Amino acid sequence: MNGHEERTDQDGARAVQAGTDEAEPLAEAEAKLAELEDRWLRAVAELDNVRKRIARDTERLRVEERDKVAAQWLPVLDNLERALSAADGDSDANPLIQGVRAVRDQAVATLNRLGYRRRDQTGVPFDPQHHEAVSTVERDDVAPGTVVEVLQPGYGDDQRQLRPAVVVVAKKAE
Amino acid sequence: MNGHEERTDQDGARAVQAGTDEAEPLAEAEAKLAELEDRWLRAVAELDNVRKRIARDTERLRVEERDKVAAQWLPVLDNLERALSAADGDSDANPLIQGVRAVRDQAVATLNRLGYRRRDQTGVPFDPQHHEAVSTVERDDVAPGTVVEVLQPGYGDDQRQLRPAVVVVAKKAE
Repeated sequence: MNGHEERTDQDGARAVQAGTDEAEPLAEAEAKLAELEDRWLRAVAELDNVRKRIARDTERLRVEERDKVAAQWLPVLDNLERALSAADGDSDANPLIQGVRAVRDQAVATLNRLGYRRRDQTGVPFDPQHHEAVSTVERDDVAPGTVVEVLQPGYGDDQRQLRPAVVVVAKKAE
Repeated sequence: MNGHEERTDQDGARAVQAGTDEAEPLAEAEAKLAELEDRWLRAVAELDNVRKRIARDTERLRVEERDKVAAQWLPVLDNLERALSAADGDSDANPLIQGVRAVRDQAVATLNRLGYRRRDQTGVPFDPQHHEAVSTVERDDVAPGTVVEVLQPGYGDDQRQLRPAVVVVAKKAE
């Protein structure tokens, strides 16, 4: 019994020593493993985020560039319409007027195809999202806040505005 | 002595057993460590590649969209020029002609600002990168291969062609 007890003590001491020698590399390896796993998981998560961001950014970049390029054509179209307005007294049979009107319609259709609908209606309620009011006129034949004149057409859809329509709005006659 | 020997044998057996028990998790941990390190390094490399690709793609995407949107305005400009050509007999003093010419110049300037220079020169050597020859004419006053007529102007710079110029090229008179 005594021998057995003695052996047990010695075994215990030896086991502790063995544990120190062999558990140290294992504990180190496990700590490294945990750290690496953390780093790997973070890299994978970051990769996933970057990929998702690319998908979003791709569409945003395209839309941004489309807006920028399309906006540069608005002054061209505005001037074409001004030239047509100035020629209003000329005969409608004038082939140049007919040709230029067709080009104007083609330009408006091009903007529409790119996603920018023309907004040039009168008689609609003023909408600060799509209209920019530059003046008001007293009117008693329409409801106050009605767009009575469009000085410059706007382009865009409900989500994206290339340019608001510049308008004159009715106010109550005093 | 006998008890000692017995103990030694038992210790040996115990040590072997302990070695098996404790070296196995260590070897396993080290294998996992190597595998994880490999995965982590690959995720980091992939992340780096994706980031580099984004930088390249961003510019490419913008240019692609710019080309696409700008190209849609070429038929509008072509038709405007056709309308002007058809009105060639009209008086230059006609304010509509003057107005439309100014708009045409503005459209050409807009394309130029976007990076698409107009190419409508005659007297230059035919260049397959910038010209599309639709016919040839016998001419002995210019070198064979000279552009003698531009049917439709081209737009672009040396790197990027939005559209080649459609031209007639001189050939040797027989």
